[in-house]
Amino acid sequence: MAKSLHLTAFMRPVSLHTGAWRYPGAYADANFNFQHLKSFAQKLEAAKFDAFFMADHLAVLNMSVEALKRSHTVTSFEPFTLLSALAGVTEKIGLAATASTTYDEPYHIARRFASLDHISGGRAAWNIVTTSNPDAARNFGHDEHAEHGERYKRAREFYDVVTGLWDSFADDAFIRDQESGIFFDPEKMHVLNHKGDELSVRGPLNIARPVQGWPVIVQAGQSEPGRQLAAETAEVVFCAPRDIAGAKTLYADIKGRMAAAGRDRDHLKILPAAFIVLGETVEEAKAKRAQLDSLVHYDSAIASLSIALGHDASGFDPDGPLPETPETNASKSGRAQLLKLAEEEKLTVRQLAQRYGGYSGLAFVGTPKTVADEMEAWLAQEAADGFTVVFPFLPQGLDDVTQKLVPELQGRGLFRRDYEGATLREHFGLPRPANRFFS
Amino acid sequence: MAKSLHLTAFMRPVSLHTGAWRYPGAYADANFNFQHLKSFAQKLEAAKFDAFFMADHLAVLNMSVEALKRSHTVTSFEPFTLLSALAGVTEKIGLAATASTTYDEPYHIARRFASLDHISGGRAAWNIVTTSNPDAARNFGHDEHAEHGERYKRAREFYDVVTGLWDSFADDAFIRDQESGIFFDPEKMHVLNHKGDELSVRGPLNIARPVQGWPVIVQAGQSEPGRQLAAETAEVVFCAPRDIAGAKTLYADIKGRMAAAGRDRDHLKILPAAFIVLGETVEEAKAKRAQLDSLVHYDSAIASLSIALGHDASGFDPDGPLPETPETNASKSGRAQLLKLAEEEKLTVRQLAQRYGGYSGLAFVGTPKTVADEMEAWLAQEAADGFTVVFPFLPQGLDDVTQKLVPELQGRGLFRRDYEGATLREHFGLPRPANRFFS
Repeated sequence: MAKSLHLTAFMRPVSLHTGAWRYPGAYADANFNFQHLKSFAQKLEAAKFDAFFMADHLAVLNMSVEALKRSHTVTSFEPFTLLSALAGVTEKIGLAATASTTYDEPYHIARRFASLDHISGGRAAWNIVTTSNPDAARNFGHDEHAEHGERYKRAREFYDVVTGLWDSFADDAFIRDQESGIFFDPEKMHVLNHKGDELSVRGPLNIARPVQGWPVIVQAGQSEPGRQLAAETAEVVFCAPRDIAGAKTLYADIKGRMAAAGRDRDHLKILPAAFIVLGETVEEAKAKRAQLDSLVHYDSAIASLSIALGHDASGFDPDGPLPETPETNASKSGRAQLLKLAEEEKLTVRQLAQRYGGYSGLAFVGTPKTVADEMEAWLAQEAADGFTVVFPFLPQGLDDVTQKLVPELQGRGLFRRDYEGATLREHFGLPRPANRFFS
Repeated sequence: MAKSLHLTAFMRPVSLHTGAWRYPGAYADANFNFQHLKSFAQKLEAAKFDAFFMADHLAVLNMSVEALKRSHTVTSFEPFTLLSALAGVTEKIGLAATASTTYDEPYHIARRFASLDHISGGRAAWNIVTTSNPDAARNFGHDEHAEHGERYKRAREFYDVVTGLWDSFADDAFIRDQESGIFFDPEKMHVLNHKGDELSVRGPLNIARPVQGWPVIVQAGQSEPGRQLAAETAEVVFCAPRDIAGAKTLYADIKGRMAAAGRDRDHLKILPAAFIVLGETVEEAKAKRAQLDSLVHYDSAIASLSIALGHDASGFDPDGPLPETPETNASKSGRAQLLKLAEEEKLTVRQLAQRYGGYSGLAFVGTPKTVADEMEAWLAQEAADGFTVVFPFLPQGLDDVTQKLVPELQGRGLFRRDYEGATLREHFGLPRPANRFFS
């Protein structure tokens, strides 16, 4: 096939949608039940997804008690343990773990990803995050959260150290000659001896070079330093444009920065997050989403809406249209998006609040054909190299995508019918990095 | 059955013995090959072992290049990733991970063990180590290794924080009432707000209380602060006595300290490490060990022997008996043990060096009957509650134990014929800890 899509699944065990655990048929216990996660990963592998991508947080999310008690985000599996367990029960699908450069040590991170890559036969990916949740700081001995620029400075150096540790051994260092008794060639071991502004790490790593050379590098930052870090280092970008116009701008910007950094633009895949709701008809898909949104509790929803509008919405008539409110210093583009949404879909205050409180990002809602049309357009117009799929509810939303949308995409030659390689790099068509210390 | 043994397997993928990777039939690639580890864990589970126990280091071990290039310790899997992968392919066997209190954060440690416990259905154990290898310090940004007392002070507080984080939620906090939309009862969530001398951690942990309440607590320390920490906190002690007399003294000391700390002495299982070599006859077992020891390279072996004797042994006749050497400040009891061993077994310098360089701890070498006799005596004389089994070489040494020794122990009523419970606590007969914040 010529140009085709890459698809990863962005997973929280229950879904990212706030109301999903209440949807009919949902696994409300998915945050405690590995068997559900195993079934999700195996279904995604059967559908030939590039990767299973585990979202993560380093704290219970900061929200009001009223919202928190309704939120399934309060408990979840930890990514390394979950993805390693999934490595044991899958064979081909990539396994992407979120890991923070702000609250962990490069030696641990390098070692865990290398180990996951060896265990899975070359299927690991590292989603580099700098952790923007200030509550995380207090779980790691800090009163104050490091500011944005400082976090990105450490992240850049952290990346250099981790990739340097992965290169501790040449690929052919381990001779394992039982006759002579030589296990490895010490000339092919490099001691990093890194001493930088933020980090001091001696090395070598106590694990052989990963199967993929380096696990695939993923990043989500859309800020100025985030884009630059991605252009210099990332191989997959997970982003959240609101529409195709915004996506095209972001795509061109990051690929342009890559060229400036001397990198081949095909060596980074841009995969916007897309919330996908499918129905037999567009109306049925919209009705499913409306039903899902209706499961978001009004008290939590209206609190989120008030913050987004920069105006207390709790006194509004829930069943009336959104009243005029004065513009404030609250996020202007977010507010404009809300007003547009309320007008276009003729949503009541309640519906708007529940939509916003449920999942506020890019959504493709329609039939397998209409959603495939949208995906095809994004690919053709260089708005995306594929998508980071967000399921509205599980297992049904995942089954809809794997059983209905994927065959539609395969029929159009837009998605693989089988894995062609064994490693995640091969699924993405990414080169295996050279070892910086050994040629 | 009345009093019976507990057995765990202390694993490095290739074995702890330096020469094991060269033994006929050994999996020299076990440090890279998850399929071998999977087969080991499944065989140990079929033999009803209590737990698979993953040894660990946070650095390439410090040794001469000549020794290092012959050592399979230079690469291995990381414990959390390996044990989580094994959780996916086993059902009953416990999974014990070594994790350091000196070079990690309590929030990460609490979370990973809780996650492993949920994924495995209550089979996780934490081997608390303070990391005595000074090279580890330099991999984590420190020039100097923290001194022993300081490490144990932090370890004790770290344990309090981790167990406190595990108690963040009452066992019945998660209502998950899809109808009302209440996911959990916020009255049943505790914010730890720990501020101590060494650590400051807010909490709550973002994962439900582990299946076992707390994963099983394992410790290996035999120093004065190590014994005290074990008596106060441990549920399994992994120790390395040289003989039954030393073991009885250690056993009585730790169980006595437990009583002083107000704990039930049955709530801690003492499991000395035992290197087990089996043969059809005692002579055959001894010959296997001699063959294994002969695979330790003489240069590495003689260097270890020189350190242990406190005297340069490189000029000795390798094939002659150990010459008289003056006593020095080198470890006196270790030196005495060596001299005794050389005399008793009439070992040449080469054989002694290879024995010492291969595996220097307690060994049971004999037939399934003679080894079962020794184990039975240790159990009866309160020298042990079971053993942490060290295999001389794999897979054969593991197959010998599971297929020959275990049936012998089962026949004597000294070891379970099947698992009676589902969790590791149940295998060990340990109580499920109460939640300190919710009764």
